[in-house]
Amino acid sequence: MVAPSALPAGTVGTVETRFLDLPQPLPLDCGRELRSVRVAYETYGTLFPRRDNVILVCHALSGDAHAAGYSATAPAESTRDGFAAETRDGAAGKALGWWDGMIGPGKAFDTDRWFVISTNLLGGCRGTTGPSSTDPETGRPYGSGFPVVTVADMVRCERAFLDELGIERLAAVAGGSLGGMQALQWAVTYPDQVDSIVVIASTHALHPQGLAWNAIAREAIIRDPAWQGGDYYGTGRAPEAGMGVARMVGHVTYLSAPALEERFGRRLQFADDIRYTFDEPEFEIESYLDHQADSFVRRFDANTYVRLSRALTYFDLARQHGDGSLERALAGISARTLLIAFSSDWLYPPAASAEIETALRGLGKPVEFHLIDAPYGHDCFLLEEARQIPVVRRFLNEGRA
Amino acid sequence: MVAPSALPAGTVGTVETRFLDLPQPLPLDCGRELRSVRVAYETYGTLFPRRDNVILVCHALSGDAHAAGYSATAPAESTRDGFAAETRDGAAGKALGWWDGMIGPGKAFDTDRWFVISTNLLGGCRGTTGPSSTDPETGRPYGSGFPVVTVADMVRCERAFLDELGIERLAAVAGGSLGGMQALQWAVTYPDQVDSIVVIASTHALHPQGLAWNAIAREAIIRDPAWQGGDYYGTGRAPEAGMGVARMVGHVTYLSAPALEERFGRRLQFADDIRYTFDEPEFEIESYLDHQADSFVRRFDANTYVRLSRALTYFDLARQHGDGSLERALAGISARTLLIAFSSDWLYPPAASAEIETALRGLGKPVEFHLIDAPYGHDCFLLEEARQIPVVRRFLNEGRA
Repeated sequence: MVAPSALPAGTVGTVETRFLDLPQPLPLDCGRELRSVRVAYETYGTLFPRRDNVILVCHALSGDAHAAGYSATAPAESTRDGFAAETRDGAAGKALGWWDGMIGPGKAFDTDRWFVISTNLLGGCRGTTGPSSTDPETGRPYGSGFPVVTVADMVRCERAFLDELGIERLAAVAGGSLGGMQALQWAVTYPDQVDSIVVIASTHALHPQGLAWNAIAREAIIRDPAWQGGDYYGTGRAPEAGMGVARMVGHVTYLSAPALEERFGRRLQFADDIRYTFDEPEFEIESYLDHQADSFVRRFDANTYVRLSRALTYFDLARQHGDGSLERALAGISARTLLIAFSSDWLYPPAASAEIETALRGLGKPVEFHLIDAPYGHDCFLLEEARQIPVVRRFLNEGRA
Repeated sequence: MVAPSALPAGTVGTVETRFLDLPQPLPLDCGRELRSVRVAYETYGTLFPRRDNVILVCHALSGDAHAAGYSATAPAESTRDGFAAETRDGAAGKALGWWDGMIGPGKAFDTDRWFVISTNLLGGCRGTTGPSSTDPETGRPYGSGFPVVTVADMVRCERAFLDELGIERLAAVAGGSLGGMQALQWAVTYPDQVDSIVVIASTHALHPQGLAWNAIAREAIIRDPAWQGGDYYGTGRAPEAGMGVARMVGHVTYLSAPALEERFGRRLQFADDIRYTFDEPEFEIESYLDHQADSFVRRFDANTYVRLSRALTYFDLARQHGDGSLERALAGISARTLLIAFSSDWLYPPAASAEIETALRGLGKPVEFHLIDAPYGHDCFLLEEARQIPVVRRFLNEGRA
């Protein structure tokens, strides 16, 4: 197994997360509306006067608006974790963006050419309105009162947010995993406003095993007595135990079995021999999962987690837009599409990207599919940046012509 | 995907689980000993006067002594669950043994020729001494006081039990998964007393992803506040929430992604459309996992679960018996070995069986490895009985000559 290659050194420098309040209520797929929505966002690069160089970057389940550079405001702990946290460190006390390897001068999303916007998604817990935000009607956190949101709702929120910035067209929408779903949804919902989409390690619909992993993660949280139906804010308790278990499940599904073999093997954690205990870590992999669980619980909200998990499972382009046919669902899009998948990703397997490619080709739409042979599973999307950069750069530059 | 073939119709009839108390304390790998051990067991077929037709069958994590026939004593609910529960039903009110397809007249373990003994393993919760048994020193259930047991401890208990029955040699030890580990351990620990072993869907040491799934299952239980350090007996609470999550993780790892696709797809459970809820099942796979969790919680003890899970992860023949070398670990065995693995089993992948085969061949030991191409994952061991029967029958008959 080869270590990920070196990355370009350019940085967007120190950035600040800003906030924008939408002036209008936001309608949701479930039939409800959110009366007051705030969006947390960051921007990198310079907006051209003609406003035609905008790229929207969409984050995955546990990300946030801080996608690049050193945060002036975010806590020191990086928003990257797992294997990805180890690939580079932020400067002392400053969190490095979760996609810093891809965004910056000379990088995939080259901030010398593109104006990159990154928002925290609707329902999040990192600045954009979500279940832990104050419900204006009650003056208390939404908790259980926060609606179930969909990927289409997230995209609708992003559209309304960009309206406020006076940005109508997007040169590209890009993201991995849940972020890739948002990119696909943008192309379907707003076909005339998106020139291209970059869909990485994503899918048009999770397969049943993916549904199962998400169900287990949600059940771990909801069955935790500290969950309290979702109204745990201010009670002094939160479903941290369940969140930890959910995160452990996530981590194992994000990595491949060979990556775990390579990284941990069956090495013991503390001693030359086993200690005959079942409630303390004995193997390095056990200790690693414990640590990942603990650090995630400190920075993420359970209500957000269960809703984003549910949104992941609901997403189904064929069902929602094509009466069961993926080709029909994609028939209206006009964006150029770049698909990237990773050979070892069993959570978002390459087959799903291939299905999208086939459907788009059948429709005569412009599409490229790059299958990258890499061993780290779904996390390749954050770990194998060096191999994605030339592909994404060229794809974006071709669109500029 | 082809449905498993029809099974032989023979049955061992109605059977009763019996109990035997070991007269001596049982020493354990951890350095402690259990002063008073009871073993639950069943037998099928007739013991030859020369006592040379004995096969010991070892169960997997959630099994018990009731391996074949209709139970006169076990609750109506079958000990089989998941996909396996659907392959056949017990007679009304009588639980069918978990390996009934393999054990009986004319079957793989042909009770017209073999005397088959099945015990509940040490640390279990179905009759053999385990954490829910009464500690003779306190008069209360062991709970947290029950030691951590290993596969070698289970085998030591089985050896002591057979001594009481006056059985010295075994024609075969057979089992799948954790049961296969016991068979391997028998061949290593008692080389002169085992003629052959049948090791199905098992391994000489779990790979790191397998360690991870087990860690998650244990954490789900231990982080449940109702766990109470393992001393939940008589408190009116038990870690059912955590056990449910643990079982869900188990189920998904026991099945293959294609099997889930074939069986459930993305079909919705209750309605033609989604209902915008995250704490109720929306997809059939979610409802299935919920059901499996609930039924398991009713019949299994959490203290047993965490200990058997730990034993699964500790098992490592190379480390324990070969100073890191599997070949050295197996150097002393004299048993003929039959290995069976399933192409879609990603929890106990065929590669592990192939490693055992290679080591035994390198040592010049008699070994057969059958890789069965079947789609159901680890559960093939219980689902694909019809294809195992001829292989196991022939292997056992050849040993009789």
